[in-house]
Amino acid sequence: MKVGVLGTGNVGQSIGGKLVEVGHEVTMGSREAGNEKAVEWADAAGEGASEGDFAAAASFGEVVFNCTAGTASLDALDAAGADNLAGRPLIDVSNPLDFSRGMPPTLAISNTDSLAERIQAAFPEARVVKTLNTVNAGVMVDPGQVGGDHVLFLSGDDEEAKRVALGLLGEFGWPGGRVVDLGGIATARGPEMYLPLWLGMMGALGTPQFNIAIQR
Amino acid sequence: MKVGVLGTGNVGQSIGGKLVEVGHEVTMGSREAGNEKAVEWADAAGEGASEGDFAAAASFGEVVFNCTAGTASLDALDAAGADNLAGRPLIDVSNPLDFSRGMPPTLAISNTDSLAERIQAAFPEARVVKTLNTVNAGVMVDPGQVGGDHVLFLSGDDEEAKRVALGLLGEFGWPGGRVVDLGGIATARGPEMYLPLWLGMMGALGTPQFNIAIQR
Repeated sequence: MKVGVLGTGNVGQSIGGKLVEVGHEVTMGSREAGNEKAVEWADAAGEGASEGDFAAAASFGEVVFNCTAGTASLDALDAAGADNLAGRPLIDVSNPLDFSRGMPPTLAISNTDSLAERIQAAFPEARVVKTLNTVNAGVMVDPGQVGGDHVLFLSGDDEEAKRVALGLLGEFGWPGGRVVDLGGIATARGPEMYLPLWLGMMGALGTPQFNIAIQR
Repeated sequence: MKVGVLGTGNVGQSIGGKLVEVGHEVTMGSREAGNEKAVEWADAAGEGASEGDFAAAASFGEVVFNCTAGTASLDALDAAGADNLAGRPLIDVSNPLDFSRGMPPTLAISNTDSLAERIQAAFPEARVVKTLNTVNAGVMVDPGQVGGDHVLFLSGDDEEAKRVALGLLGEFGWPGGRVVDLGGIATARGPEMYLPLWLGMMGALGTPQFNIAIQR
């Protein structure tokens, strides 16, 4: 499958690398083609990996991952272009963390809205799925780093796009039974608003390499 | 120990009942003495259980639990009286859920503040500890209803008050190793903002009888 990965940070590199590893073709997108980190990533990831600007990555992908910083995501997606996103599953992995007030960060959008909803509203023809934002980049693509039946969450209005996301998550190592479908895209408020607790746990545990399991 | 429990709902009744069961004396507080639910509770809970208005319950308690609805908590604590709360561990179990916009509820306070911080700021001489708000009333006082090493969180500025809370949680059935100390009272934003995800999981699971475990 051809996948566009928007964002050159830790998350974009991890997801892009994993996608190439399991046999997909990936174009990593950044504000301008030739971004140093993207070029370095594409060279290291090898065959199937390329880079370009946001629009090039989005138009390349049958599926697009948003791995940009949450506060920059809407601008990045504008640059990617609504036409290039139309009809595609747009897997939103980002968190609207706002570091401008210092640490710990607050959320730039929350409570009565979420970044995922904002993206879906701004790009109504994209088929937005929120997932993966509740674990760190390493765990996203290698859930075996953490023991036990820890879980991910899934939110989105489009069932077919969710199925595509579930398939890719399965290739990342997440069995379907460990992905909790919360419902429509508005349910993304939950996983996004979980971030302050995640940050608190990270501080208490002294590591970002953890996740939660649901016990009944 | 003498404990004041503010609130006559499901949470207040569960916590009050458990406290009596393990040998404490409890006064349940409500807006006016003689509240029907409080009288009924006190009769059923038996020896060691009594009821009165918020001020009577707070002045009775060496420790006070806030089990009122989050959007009513500051008013209830005002009625309890700053003098009656001064110096006491004030264990805040409430969530600032706002149902006025319909379902699912939003949070009346969040992101840059939390109900626990608001309470600590309004009653600077009380020693506020946030805990227990991340599970339903049944699980709060009977964690064995859920399997596995599921956890609670603890936030507060006063270490001695946290130790008192940990002792009571131990009597409820929560071993200290399963209570994650997040830090000062501002860290209560995390467990409070977790509520939308908790509600989403409740919807997906079809039951409120669950909790999360931390996997590493």
